[in-house]
Formats: sequence, C-alpha cells, structure tokens
Amino acid sequence: MLDVNVAGRWTAAPGSDEIVTGDALYCPDIKLPGMLIGKLLYSPFARARIKKLDVQKAREMAGVFAVITHADIPGENSYLYAHPDQPLLVVDEVRFQGDAVAAVAAVDAQTADAALQAIEVEYEELAGQFDPLEAMQPDAEVVLPGEDNVLMYQTFTTGDVDEAIASADVVVENIYRTQWAEHAFLETEGAVADVDNDGLITVYSSCQAPHRDRMQIARSLGVPESTVRVITPYIGGAFGGKDEAHVQMHVALLAQASGRPVSLIRDRRESILTHVKRHPVIVECTTAATKNGQLVAVKAKVIGDAGPYSNATHEVINKLGEFIGGPYTVQNVEVQKIGVRTNNPITGAFRGFGAPQAAFVYESQMDELASKLGIDPLEIRLRNGVETGTRMYTGVVIREGAGMKESLKKAADMIDWKQRGRCEREPASHLRRGFGMATILKGCGLGRGLGDHASVIVEMHRDGSVVVRSAAADMGQGIVTVLAQLAADGIGVALSSVRVVRADTSQSPDAGASCGSRQTMVSGNAVLEAAGTIRDTLLMLAAMKTKASKDQLTLKDGKLFVDGELHAMTVRDLAERASNWGYPLHAESLVHFDYPEDVPDVAYKYSQEVFQFCTQIAQVLVDTETGQVTVERLVAVHDVGKMINPGGVYGQIEGGVAQGIGYALSEELVVKNGITQNPSLENYVIPMALDIPEIEMAVLENPEPRGAPLGAKGVAEAPIIPTAPAIRNAIFDAIGKPLHTLPMIPERVLGD
Amino acid sequence: MLDVNVAGRWTAAPGSDEIVTGDALYCPDIKLPGMLIGKLLYSPFARARIKKLDVQKAREMAGVFAVITHADIPGENSYLYAHPDQPLLVVDEVRFQGDAVAAVAAVDAQTADAALQAIEVEYEELAGQFDPLEAMQPDAEVVLPGEDNVLMYQTFTTGDVDEAIASADVVVENIYRTQWAEHAFLETEGAVADVDNDGLITVYSSCQAPHRDRMQIARSLGVPESTVRVITPYIGGAFGGKDEAHVQMHVALLAQASGRPVSLIRDRRESILTHVKRHPVIVECTTAATKNGQLVAVKAKVIGDAGPYSNATHEVINKLGEFIGGPYTVQNVEVQKIGVRTNNPITGAFRGFGAPQAAFVYESQMDELASKLGIDPLEIRLRNGVETGTRMYTGVVIREGAGMKESLKKAADMIDWKQRGRCEREPASHLRRGFGMATILKGCGLGRGLGDHASVIVEMHRDGSVVVRSAAADMGQGIVTVLAQLAADGIGVALSSVRVVRADTSQSPDAGASCGSRQTMVSGNAVLEAAGTIRDTLLMLAAMKTKASKDQLTLKDGKLFVDGELHAMTVRDLAERASNWGYPLHAESLVHFDYPEDVPDVAYKYSQEVFQFCTQIAQVLVDTETGQVTVERLVAVHDVGKMINPGGVYGQIEGGVAQGIGYALSEELVVKNGITQNPSLENYVIPMALDIPEIEMAVLENPEPRGAPLGAKGVAEAPIIPTAPAIRNAIFDAIGKPLHTLPMIPERVLGD
Repeated sequence: MLDVNVAGRWTAAPGSDEIVTGDALYCPDIKLPGMLIGKLLYSPFARARIKKLDVQKAREMAGVFAVITHADIPGENSYLYAHPDQPLLVVDEVRFQGDAVAAVAAVDAQTADAALQAIEVEYEELAGQFDPLEAMQPDAEVVLPGEDNVLMYQTFTTGDVDEAIASADVVVENIYRTQWAEHAFLETEGAVADVDNDGLITVYSSCQAPHRDRMQIARSLGVPESTVRVITPYIGGAFGGKDEAHVQMHVALLAQASGRPVSLIRDRRESILTHVKRHPVIVECTTAATKNGQLVAVKAKVIGDAGPYSNATHEVINKLGEFIGGPYTVQNVEVQKIGVRTNNPITGAFRGFGAPQAAFVYESQMDELASKLGIDPLEIRLRNGVETGTRMYTGVVIREGAGMKESLKKAADMIDWKQRGRCEREPASHLRRGFGMATILKGCGLGRGLGDHASVIVEMHRDGSVVVRSAAADMGQGIVTVLAQLAADGIGVALSSVRVVRADTSQSPDAGASCGSRQTMVSGNAVLEAAGTIRDTLLMLAAMKTKASKDQLTLKDGKLFVDGELHAMTVRDLAERASNWGYPLHAESLVHFDYPEDVPDVAYKYSQEVFQFCTQIAQVLVDTETGQVTVERLVAVHDVGKMINPGGVYGQIEGGVAQGIGYALSEELVVKNGITQNPSLENYVIPMALDIPEIEMAVLENPEPRGAPLGAKGVAEAPIIPTAPAIRNAIFDAIGKPLHTLPMIPERVLGD
Repeated sequence: MLDVNVAGRWTAAPGSDEIVTGDALYCPDIKLPGMLIGKLLYSPFARARIKKLDVQKAREMAGVFAVITHADIPGENSYLYAHPDQPLLVVDEVRFQGDAVAAVAAVDAQTADAALQAIEVEYEELAGQFDPLEAMQPDAEVVLPGEDNVLMYQTFTTGDVDEAIASADVVVENIYRTQWAEHAFLETEGAVADVDNDGLITVYSSCQAPHRDRMQIARSLGVPESTVRVITPYIGGAFGGKDEAHVQMHVALLAQASGRPVSLIRDRRESILTHVKRHPVIVECTTAATKNGQLVAVKAKVIGDAGPYSNATHEVINKLGEFIGGPYTVQNVEVQKIGVRTNNPITGAFRGFGAPQAAFVYESQMDELASKLGIDPLEIRLRNGVETGTRMYTGVVIREGAGMKESLKKAADMIDWKQRGRCEREPASHLRRGFGMATILKGCGLGRGLGDHASVIVEMHRDGSVVVRSAAADMGQGIVTVLAQLAADGIGVALSSVRVVRADTSQSPDAGASCGSRQTMVSGNAVLEAAGTIRDTLLMLAAMKTKASKDQLTLKDGKLFVDGELHAMTVRDLAERASNWGYPLHAESLVHFDYPEDVPDVAYKYSQEVFQFCTQIAQVLVDTETGQVTVERLVAVHDVGKMINPGGVYGQIEGGVAQGIGYALSEELVVKNGITQNPSLENYVIPMALDIPEIEMAVLENPEPRGAPLGAKGVAEAPIIPTAPAIRNAIFDAIGKPLHTLPMIPERVLGD
C-alpha cells in the first residue's frame, strides 16, 4: 500500500543550495574549451525588403569562424511551434523587429559585434500593418505572402445568444483592450552548442520543451534527431516565453558551420525585441443576466494581434474563448476568435495562455452586472458558480468543482468581505480605498485531443538509491522537487534517496513541454506509475523472503514493515537481491492526460477538463490626484487538489500575484510602428518588492478524482489570472470608474 | 515479420572513421578545465610491512591538491569483483608489486611525481610466498591474514575415473605448466573523474563493466550510486584486463578530495605491474582411451596462482575445470581445482577465462594419445567429438553441436590435411615442417545460476531515426555495430538510421560486463526484443491506416510493404503519427541468458550451455639449431551460429589467433620473487605483423536454436583457445617432441 510520507511536506528544493550560492550553472555560465560567441543581426525596421545582403567581408575577418544567412541552412529555415511560417533567418523581407538576417560566431563578443557591423545589408523600408483592425480588412496589404492576414477566424456558439440577450433583464456591453506584456524572466534566452567527434550535436538551452527543440534543431540542420542532444542546465524562468525555441537552431547551425562550440545569449534588449509577448487583444463583450443576477448569455468578439507569424496564436486565442464565460453556469455563449497578422511583435505563450485576458473581461463584466443589479459581487458569483458535475457551456462536465465556491467564501472570510464597508474608505481627501474580487478557473494540460503525454524512467540502484529521469524542464517552477517527492512516496524511500536528473534528451524520455500547468499531473502520474512498478518488485522479493503476502507489507522511508512491524530487511537489501537475480528495478512509464468523459459533438474544441480554481481579493488605495494605485492587501485562495510541494505551491501563488500586479498596473510594451519603445527593464516597469503587499494565501485541497497524482492539480498559471480583474474591481469600488484597458496606469485611472 | 536485411552484411563500424583519423576520444584524450593529474604510489617490494607512512610534506607542496591514503577513504577500502579482499590503498602491508600505498593529484605530472617522492614511507621487506606449491602447504606462512592460502579447493567427479583408467588400453599422463600472460591492450588503464556543482561524480573510464564500476565507486566514496555516473569513451582494448575496476575508485576519491577534475592514466610499466594476468597453472593430467581411440577418462589436478587476492580466481579455475575434457564425449572425469594465494602478481580474467590453459592440456593429450595409438589426429577427434544432443560430462546437453565435427573437417580440407605428408617435411637439414590441429569448445555467457542479464533501451524519434542505449562496453570488439545491426533489422530500418550510444550509466541501463563472449547474445536479444516492441507499434499504426492486417505488413529499410508491395507511407510517417498521438516508440527490455534445460543434480557448477566450436590447424617450421618456430600457415574454422557483423567476426578470429601465437611462442612475464622482470612491451614479446601468417579463415553458421539473436553466438574468446595447442601439436609433428610448458620459446623447443 502506498504510504504518503514525503508529498505534502515542506522541503528544500534539490539544487536550491547551488542556486542560492551562485554555483548553479545556467546557460551563460557554460564555458567550453575553444567556445565561440554567437550573435544575430536584427533589422532596425519592422518591415523592410532586403535589397542586398553581403557577408563576405565579415567572413574574411580574423577571429570570425562562421557567418551564415538563410542560404547556408542545410535543413528547414523555419521554427515549428505549430506552423512553420517563421524563418530562422529571413530570406528577402524583414517582417518584424525580431527577424534575424544573419548569424555570426567569432572568438569573442567584440569580434562578433564587429562581424555584424561588417555585414552589408541594404534595406528598403516598407509600410507595415500595425493595427489589427486595419490589417484584417479584405483590401489590406498582405503581411506574409500566400497567407491571409486573418490567420484564424473561428466562432463557437452554444445555445441562442441573441435571443437570451434580447430577453435578459440586464445587459452589460464593453470593449476591453489589453497590452503587449513581457515575461521578463531573469535569465534571457540563450543556448550553447557543441559538436563532438562522432558528429553528435549537444545543445544546452534555457527552454521549456527539450524534445521538441531537439526535433526543431535536427530539421534545421538537416540531420537525424538521433544525433542531436538537448540538455537543460538550470533555467532562470520562462513563463511560456521559452516554450517555442529561440536561438537553439541558430547556435547549432553556427556550431555545425564552425566545428566549434558556440554560445549565443540574447541581451535584455534583444530578448524583449524578439521573443513572443502576451497577445494584446480587443474584446467586445456583452454579458446578459436576469434581475436576480443569473447569467443568461455571454457574447464576445476577440481580436488578437499575432505579429507576422502564427506561433501560438491559434492556441492562445482559442483558450481565451474557452474561458470567456468564466467559472459560471451560463449556457448561451458565442465567441468569435480572431487572430490577425501584423508587423508588430510576435505573440504567443505566456502564463495563462489567454486566460488572463479572458478573466479581465469576464470578471470586470461581473462587477458591472452586480453594480447595475445592486447585488454584492460575492453573491452574484456564488449564484452563478460552477460545482462538481456542472456541464460547462464548453460541453465539459466538471469532475471536481468545490473549489470554486469554497475559494470565494474563504477569500471573503480572510479579508472580512462583509465588513469591508467599515474600513476607512476615504483616508484622505485625495485617497479612496476599495475592494475587488475575481474568481477564475483555469484548465490543466494541453486540452482534449492534443496528444498530451509524458514519459519517465525511474531506476533504483543496488544500494537502494533512486534516479528519476524526466525531461520535464524545470524553469524554476520546481517540477524536479515534485517528481522527487512522488518517486519517494511511490516506492517508499526517503526523499534524500532520490535524485532527479535535469532534463536531457539523452538521459530522459520525452515529457512534453513544461507548459499549461501540466507537468505535476502528467509527469507526476508517470513517476507514480514507474515507481509503483519498482515498489511491486521490491514487495514481491520481500514477500518471498518474509513469507508474508504482499498486502501485509509496506515500504516507507527505505524500511520494510510487515503488518506494520519494522522488519530487519531494508529497501537496500531488497535492491541488492533484485540486482543479483536480475529483477529489473528500472521502470519506464508513459502516461496520457486523462480524458475519459464523453462530451457532446458540439463541445468546445481542445477544451480542458481539469480545473484550477482560485479567488483573489484586492484592497487598493487610489490617489485621485496622481492616479497612482497602491495594492494594500491581496488575498489569494487556491484549490490545488493536493499540495505535493507546499513551498512550490505558495511560491507559484506569490510569483503569479506579483506578475499579475505588474500586468494590472504598470507593465506595457509601448510599440510604435512595430518597434518597441521600451526594450529594457528600466522602462518596462515590473513591480518591485515595495509594490507588492504581503500576499495573504490559503490553499484548498479538494482532490481531483482521476488522473491526478494523489489528487494534485497544476498551480502554475492560475495565480496570475485573477489579479488584474481583482485590482480593476477594487479601483471600480474605490472611485466608481469602470476601467476596460490594461494596464491601469495613472493616465487611465485619471483619464476619461 | 522480421526481415533480415542488415545483419550478416559487411559494414563499417560506427565510429571507425574517428578511430582511424585519431579523432576518437580515449580516456587519455579527455582534458577538462582545471583538470589535475593523478598518480599512485606503488611499493618497490612484493611483500613489505609499512612501518611509517607520512604524506604531510607532499600535502603541503605547491600545486598538490590531494594526497590520500587508506585513512582518507570515506567508504569501503576494497575492490569488489566478487570478493572484497583487495584494498584500494594498503593499510599496513604490501602484498604484491601492484599494491598502491597512496594517491596524489597535482596540477601536472611533474608535480604529481614530486609529490609521490615527497611521501615518506618506511618499508620492512618481508619474505613472501612465491611458489604456489609451497604456499599451499599447511605450515606455509599466511599471505592474507584471516584467509587460507588455499583460496579454493574443489573437486568435480563424474563416473568412476580410477576404474576407467585402470581398465583403459592406453594412458597418457603429463604435467603442464603455463605462464603469466599480459593482455597488452593498446590503451593502458585510465580514468578521469569530475565532480559537478550538484555533487554528481562522473567517471570516464576505460572499462568492461560500467555499472559494476559505478557500484564500486559509490561504495568506496561512501555516496549513493545515484550520484555516480560512469561513461566509457572509446576504449583501446581490454581482453578481460579491464573487467575488474582499476583506477576508477582512486581517481574518483582524488576528485572528491580535491573538488577538481582528475585524470589518472597508468603508464605501460604500471599497467603491466598492477593489473591481473592470465593465471599461470600447473596441470597434472591423465587421459585414458581404448585402443581404438575412444576416450574413457580424464583426471586432472589444476593448481592456479592467484597472487594475494582472489579477483577472478574462483571463476577462472572453475572454467578451466569445466573444459578440461574438451569437446569430447568422455564420461569419467575428475578434476581438482585449486587456487593458491601467493605474493606474485594478481591473476584474473583474460580472453577465454581458463579455457586456453585447458585446451593446451586436452589437445596436447589428444595428440599424444593419437601418436601412441597410431591414429590420425583428425580421426581420433572425430571419433570422440560431441554432437547436437550429446550430454557432456558436465551434465549439460549440447543444443547445437554440428560445428564441432564440421569445423574439424572444414579445417582439414582447407589445409589438405590428408596430403600433408606430401609437402616438404625437411626443407633444409636444420629445418623441420609439421602440422598440428586443435579443436575446442567454449561457452558463451557467465554460466548457469550467475544472474546473467542485460537491459537495453531502444527509441525511435519523430523523424524515424533510432537510438540504442546499451551500457555494453565496446572495447573494440564491436558490440556497438552488432547492436546497431540488430536494431535496424529488429525494427526494419536502414543501418544508417541507427545510432548506438556508447556505454554511459546515465544514458543506458545495465547490460552487465562485456566478458564471457556474452554481449552479442544477451544484449543482442534485448535489442531485438525492444526493437520488436517498436516495430509492433509501427505496424499497428500502419494497419490502422492501410486497413491491412499486421501480418500482411513488413517494414524494411525504413519502408512499408503491404503484401510485399511498397506503400507510400514510410517508417518516418509512422513515427510522426506515433509521436503525435503518444504511442510510445521508446522500449526497454531486460533479457536473461537462457538456461531452460534440466541438468542433473551433480552437474558441473555454473556450467555454460551455449558453445562456440572451432578448429585451428597450424603448419610450422622448426629451426632445430635455434629452436625458433615459424608459423607458416594457420587455418581457423569457427562456428558462430550466425554472423551478424562479418568484419567483427573475422577481426575477432584474426586478433585471437595473433594473441594465441604470442601465448604459444613468445609471451611470458618473468616474475622473480614476486617482481615482474620485463614490465614493458620491449621485452614482453607480443607477435609483430611478420610473426603472423595470413590467417586462412572460414566461418560456419549452425544457428543456435534458442536464446541467440538470429542464431548468433559469441565469438570473442574462442579464437585464442586452440592456437597454442595447434602450434604445440605441429611442433610435436615436426620434431617429435611433446612440449608441456608455455610459451614454447626456443630454449624449451631445444631443451630437454
């Protein structure tokens, strides 16, 4: 019987000593003998025709070992997140500021910079498409030849939305706008490539999906995947911004061309200019309810700016639509999901995958409805909230939904919601205090029909020590800790007996990307399954030796118990027996994300079925003279099913809320004619420690009934989602002004 | 259906380009940043008490980063091939010339040498045991305190030997002596250790058993096995001499102590002085037959010199006894197997594992019997030879034995045995020409009851390329090629699609040691099994798509055939489908060596059951003035079951015969009072190209019926075994002198 002894306990993350002391190796720390420095040449224009590209002078420079253009790529000249429409090196036209024209590798950074300067490029600047509303017009000039500017236009409808709106008691209709937001991971994108004597290419990279990167590297180099190895060293954050590959192919191409190791690390400016941003969206939303606040319809039109290439636009805008109704039982929903190509920055995956934009819309609408109807915001949410067994408008039945209302009630209790009127609402003549809540649901996993699976190998050695081989990238979110804990409990050994190998495609099978709050569930289940195979073998050997039946036996903390009594034989002894006699203590497991439920034929495509629920309540102070908003308190209540690693769960909540405060109040990439005006962390303003109140957290544990290891659900994305609408509703409460545009900078707080 | 398309074809070995150009990395080529040079301090005496050991001055030297003695070993201070009786660093007494006293790591070789010199050791030389016959006397001084000098004394008896001898028509009785022989691998023993920031210790080593080495390293360092990684770079030969670990633990201890990478490479002198040699044995052998040449009894007493520590003495002397009756149907056998501790060099595994010594005895005896009876040596062997179904005196029934007589006949045909009398027998007055044959059997695998198993992982990527992860060390014998071929046929792809990862305990599961001619069979079967799992998945997907049934489908060379017709869908297409839908193309297999047959209770312990058969015939020219023996022709016929890699099979035969010629005629370590007098390849005389005739080879393929991949048996050890007795019998034929001592140097050829 599985004895849960390690999961749920606070523990230091493996490797945290190295991280704290600075000993941990991140990509920029990797130095190989003879290593060159790689750099990419970017266009100064958002759109330009390349009239001339001559790299000869650069190639002839002393200390320059490789200069490559699109013509030098032996394999495919494209990224392949989903659609191969973004070139690694542009051919004849630059389509956004992040398009690279050439790549160089030289003995040092100075020489590489000089080589970039020696490359002769003549650009003819062209007028670009910078407004998605214009770009989507039928007569607009095409951004990407052969492709429609409207790269997606899908409509999902359930029920009769127009009829429901027409017959509703109250209707709220608004247009929302959100900004380009930056992941601002501490470590910028980087990779180091090395080619060994056998022709094997090893790429160390700061990434979220090592096996998919391996595939992309192989196809761009024109070599078999079997000759490419991707290793993740320590990773300093990602948040979706490293889900798609970045410089891995370029650095591998440079290593292939030069025959030497190459390191290519983006500086902060390059990082901000090139990688995908959170989609800026325009959402026209109509929400209708009965007079007692029962939602009857949601109608939305979402227009997202993709930049010139698709990247994850289909996926993000589709998810945005999936959550546009919120965690509510509304049955008439229509959502038009539109993605438009422009010459603006490319957009893609970012913590929440469209759900933060959706929540800003639906939770703002809820408070305007509540305000119109005179219903308390808590009450209107409780009246409409989903529960276990609710069939959502997406067609999905909620397996376990207690967390929706429990989190609302718990958060309300923590902030003393009902007594909020008693606090000082106007502490000074220019200051107004307000309270706002937001409650959300966010799916875990990629979604039904998307081949969401993970493999893992667990092995026990002769001395009873355990290694977990998982290629689930740990970008700081702590999956390594979670898998170690699950392996320890899954076998019945101490956590200190388990070592998890950081993702390495040559040491660990494919676990898919670390995205979509999926790894704890899918890789966690795979670890439990593989660990169970090892435990079964150990118990079989123990049963042979003790003459007890297997169900009398327990393994815990490396010890054997027979009918609960400690036995002299240890796991180590059993491992030695297994080794001598050739019983395998090496187990592999492949687990698919679990979608056994039937859904109607008209169900929302790729919908998720396991949900994180959370409620956040913000208390803000608005300075009506400066427009400055201070978040004074923030309560966050999250249902995670089961906490495996409490430090990780609370860390995710704190980090997500902090990132959410930035999204709400200050973070915005200012893009003019396709060029980002503030590509640095000096003027892209992420919150500092003083901008963030001590976050008041509570965790609920309503175990997910199926396909979740010990009942645990993912927690990575949810925390950022309700923060912006909670703060927005608190501002609404404080000054009575309904804001519909993010971020809520002073100009907007004060403006019309 | 499996289509054999790659196995059996000549192919370049993967990595052969690198080997030929010098690009391949062997241990001495590995240079890590900050790497130190490790050295060991050996005693100048074969036996001495250590009265004083002071390393303080050495420790204080500039550039010296670690000096360790037995007192500094955190874990176990012993090797553990089978019995942990050999220390890594001696405590109070040196027991043979290869015992190390201390280890140092310094910035360079000069400083390391200076550090060794700065270590203050006072030795008191002691009288040692240098003659096993004396050492085995009851009153002899004990070599290893607490252990009997007679480390093994086992007797195996079947039938009534004395009665059979007494009633035989003819009896031949001789005492044979063999020498200490040196493996003389091109690359001496060496290892490089590195400790990373996470505390993981990586040891690159030139070895035969990476997983067992990992276990030994972990136990000496006192760390979990999960934190130790052993990688084999290219290996320049081993032949059993790297079966036991050598400097892996020392170099890891130095890396652990210094916190820096350390390289420790033995020079040739150290290599010869320290690693195990082939056991010198004294064999008293009585062979009895009827007058028509039918063998009736073999009685033998084998005394092997172990040196002070057991190492593989039990195993080697036991195997020697197992084969003492040769490939013959004799039913009355008695063999006393004695291993004796001395202060001579340690002895252990070496290609053939006792079988070369046994064959020298039994095949010499056969020719003396034939001579006495006036029967042709070919005829007496055919009359006594085993066949398929023969129950050996060991109790084992031969599954497939046609190769015994077929190899005899084929070899006789090739050299025109029956017409050998017609050649010029006396080309000059001082020259005599002679012909001699020897036929042998040699088991594959470790032997019944010895936990002989191997694991492997085979994985196919999305692009159809394949990686085989096996920790079977390739020391040059070519297992990497064989496994690649079997994976290619096992799935149905081209050989070029398959890459085999060189043994690395972090990339590949335990395959056991590369020894005992076992890897082709046991790892080969594991690869076929795992590859079959992948093929099954591909065929299932192909069946879904084509609507054909699986048995209509074939995969070959990466293509799909339906009822023999080429289909548009390729393996690559199928792999992509599998990847999209999460069908695993990642299969692991653990295979046990197959011992299903019943054997009698009194069967020979640990006996093997799959046999290599071969016959070699030598034509020699003896100079009766100088005693020089020239091998003019050498015919070698080997039954290998099925050739997977013809280049590897012929290479093994050529190499084995060359090594056998050295063993027969020139190679001998001269040991006086425990000290080797010729520890260099200048005066330990291995054959040069001109000493070896063009070897005339033929390969028979009688498929092994069970537990052998495509019927293939091992071929690594057999070729060395018959060479010495064939040459011995040719000398006997040429000059009428029966030699009983190896090597047959001129002094012995001319002597009494």
